[in-house]
Amino acid sequence: MKELERLLDRVIQRVNINLRELEYDVNPLVHNLIPLNQMTKFYAFYGITPNHPLNLQFRHSNLAGSYFLGRCRVTNSLLYKSDIRGDELKQKDDLFQYQEFEIPMAEDEEIEIEDSFLIKTLVHNFSHDPETLEKFFIKDTISTQYANIHGSPSNGSFLGPFATVDLTTIRDCLIGTFSYIQAGEVSHLNIEPGTVWVRSPETFNFLYRFPLQRLNNYIYFTAGSSPRGIFIDFVEDRKEAFQRVFDVLNLEPSVSVPSSASLDRFAVIKPKTHISENVLVSQRAYLQNAWLGKGANAQEQSYIINSRLEGNDITAHGAKIIEARLGKDVFVGFNCFLRGRPESQLTIGKDSIIMPHTIIDIHKPLKIPAGHLVWGLVTNEKDLDNNSMSLKAFAKIETRFSKGDMIFEGSGSEFVTTFKERIHHILEANGAFFNGISNKGHAQQNQNISFNTIQPYPKGEKEGLYPTIIIRP
Amino acid sequence: MKELERLLDRVIQRVNINLRELEYDVNPLVHNLIPLNQMTKFYAFYGITPNHPLNLQFRHSNLAGSYFLGRCRVTNSLLYKSDIRGDELKQKDDLFQYQEFEIPMAEDEEIEIEDSFLIKTLVHNFSHDPETLEKFFIKDTISTQYANIHGSPSNGSFLGPFATVDLTTIRDCLIGTFSYIQAGEVSHLNIEPGTVWVRSPETFNFLYRFPLQRLNNYIYFTAGSSPRGIFIDFVEDRKEAFQRVFDVLNLEPSVSVPSSASLDRFAVIKPKTHISENVLVSQRAYLQNAWLGKGANAQEQSYIINSRLEGNDITAHGAKIIEARLGKDVFVGFNCFLRGRPESQLTIGKDSIIMPHTIIDIHKPLKIPAGHLVWGLVTNEKDLDNNSMSLKAFAKIETRFSKGDMIFEGSGSEFVTTFKERIHHILEANGAFFNGISNKGHAQQNQNISFNTIQPYPKGEKEGLYPTIIIRP
Repeated sequence: MKELERLLDRVIQRVNINLRELEYDVNPLVHNLIPLNQMTKFYAFYGITPNHPLNLQFRHSNLAGSYFLGRCRVTNSLLYKSDIRGDELKQKDDLFQYQEFEIPMAEDEEIEIEDSFLIKTLVHNFSHDPETLEKFFIKDTISTQYANIHGSPSNGSFLGPFATVDLTTIRDCLIGTFSYIQAGEVSHLNIEPGTVWVRSPETFNFLYRFPLQRLNNYIYFTAGSSPRGIFIDFVEDRKEAFQRVFDVLNLEPSVSVPSSASLDRFAVIKPKTHISENVLVSQRAYLQNAWLGKGANAQEQSYIINSRLEGNDITAHGAKIIEARLGKDVFVGFNCFLRGRPESQLTIGKDSIIMPHTIIDIHKPLKIPAGHLVWGLVTNEKDLDNNSMSLKAFAKIETRFSKGDMIFEGSGSEFVTTFKERIHHILEANGAFFNGISNKGHAQQNQNISFNTIQPYPKGEKEGLYPTIIIRP
Repeated sequence: MKELERLLDRVIQRVNINLRELEYDVNPLVHNLIPLNQMTKFYAFYGITPNHPLNLQFRHSNLAGSYFLGRCRVTNSLLYKSDIRGDELKQKDDLFQYQEFEIPMAEDEEIEIEDSFLIKTLVHNFSHDPETLEKFFIKDTISTQYANIHGSPSNGSFLGPFATVDLTTIRDCLIGTFSYIQAGEVSHLNIEPGTVWVRSPETFNFLYRFPLQRLNNYIYFTAGSSPRGIFIDFVEDRKEAFQRVFDVLNLEPSVSVPSSASLDRFAVIKPKTHISENVLVSQRAYLQNAWLGKGANAQEQSYIINSRLEGNDITAHGAKIIEARLGKDVFVGFNCFLRGRPESQLTIGKDSIIMPHTIIDIHKPLKIPAGHLVWGLVTNEKDLDNNSMSLKAFAKIETRFSKGDMIFEGSGSEFVTTFKERIHHILEANGAFFNGISNKGHAQQNQNISFNTIQPYPKGEKEGLYPTIIIRP
């Protein structure tokens, strides 16, 4: 156990060094988060398919409940319940478009994780930093519960619970609880809790801040104690269902899965779930009485309960959809919490975009019209008025606009176009457009994954640490 | 799947080249044995503890249901349900006594397995070949169901079902069904089925041949079909019980296990089994209503059913003990099949030695007196007279002796002494003499094993093959 403690201390120290300019000490925030004594009981696993370039290396590392696809390196690291999907890694000679530059890849992209401390975290690759296209590093970064690191190299940063860093290279940053950052490249920033920030330098800037008092009911985190609130209760209540899928080695799917769709064997599927063609259900997704139309997806750590998704809907990482009906082509962003109730369903019209980190929590039926953009905290019609807009109207913004707690600067039309392009890319990458021959994506290529489980040393100095494991094709 | 088939063909070809002097073609013997189509469904696993030197490397290999402890290498190989225990590997600078030579180890001993095809096989290390003390190679060898390779480097050989090669380096040999060979070093030999041969060159030579007609009821194997007979029925009937222990990732023991004893989590334990101090129950052992006294052991693939072992009893790999009562210090050798019946129990007096590959199958109660040596096939009192002798009497043989189908040449006293020393070594190595402080053995050191499971490629050219996996401390 000693070496594991030493490793943890070193990671904390390094992050503190990186954050010294922000005068921040992560020590009290971290020490309650990781159940060191339980580290020997966890096991890690990783997926192997013929479709993903394999080069896993774990050196003197600890990792638990992981899921790796594609190239990777983990050196002297702590991880915990991480999904690190290398399924969109760039390959040698691929061309990467950055502004007017076409940059050819010098070598195959790799993920590197070093001296990192990530818990219950998703790291999804596709590095967008044009300076380090071949590397997807995550060095001394501490990422707490349900934080997402998505397409985002990071270094020396601290991510609070349910924080998301998306397509953003962060260095020496503090990302507050439930904050969402999609901002290109940032360093030495202290992002307050409940910040939703989408920036494309010189093109647009979207900023929303949650009213903290109200957000605290959902998620509240302070030094010295574990995070709490409705989000935590929600996931804790459903924890047990995952026990079985993680306890058993081979699990046959409990629903019928079309040959063009993919249901991860580590997802929880409750009756009466329906999976259509081209659907992707990822690891640690939770589906209960969920009807998924053609090309819809349920990404890692998403929950879809008593809901119907008509087709080509995106349920991003960590999003929750409860008692809702979604038209076609609805996008539900990272960590959204959309909770209708049996007597008061939530309806979302087709082509709508629910911004990442949106909370909709209603006690009366609520209808979001087709083609709308929704953000922030919505508990009734009035909130909806303050926190939504038709995409058509939004595209007309030319310089500056504010509504409720949201401020927008720049080109609304660029914002909408960029968002729609990304949605198209996500559907494409996930295999929603597969026609039986071409347009294969994750739904088709992530079928038939071999899962390999590994356990750490059970005793001695190295208790809780894993031996070095190198896997090559 | 193609690469897997290619690999199998290559191994068969190499063994055939090695066996060309014996004019033998293993092709028709092998093709029914390995369920190639199921190879993708199997998974392999290996154990990790702080007490065993770790250096596993699997390169382009296939392996399924394995169990590795200690250093190992597997190159371009097929294995299947193998236990390869590296828990008695010699270390650098250890002194190995061979006749008048004290040979220091040049480096840590390693196991190497290359282009091999082993199914349902145990390979237990501790190489005794003074020429290759640091290597425990098993190159192009095909070993069929329930064969044991024990302390025995081997190359270019074919082992029939339930064959055992014990402390014998074999090269280019055919070892017939249910034959037991402990003969130092042999090459280019064709050992007939049902041969029990224990030789210490220039000291003694023990030879027994089973009456083939009678042996065929127990185990019969011929080209083009699967082995059949009572042995196969017996293990097949109990196969299902193993399903559960292999399907689940973590399994809590169902009986109380003293802190000085060790119960492998891949053993099957049925009520009402009792485990005393210093007991070792190994992987794939099967215990049902079994009472194990202090220091008794149940080694890999042994079965103990409705039986009582008083203490310091050895149940060697693959031995079956049914409806029997064993006094203290009874040795039951490899693949023995001792079957009493509820109305006709088998009783074995203390200090007796049941030779490896002995069949006792009775319909009337039978008592073996204390301090006896038993061999061959015994179904009644008369058989017992023909196939047993007191160890005291045996020790008096000085030149040559025969009884029933057994022939002995050389020093009976050396034979008994050598056997007793080995029994003492086995008990010692297994931790039977642990006093709470010293004399630790496998029962104490094989506790708290981490188990790691790996699965092969699920699809494509490499279907059924594993990626290269390197594990280091």
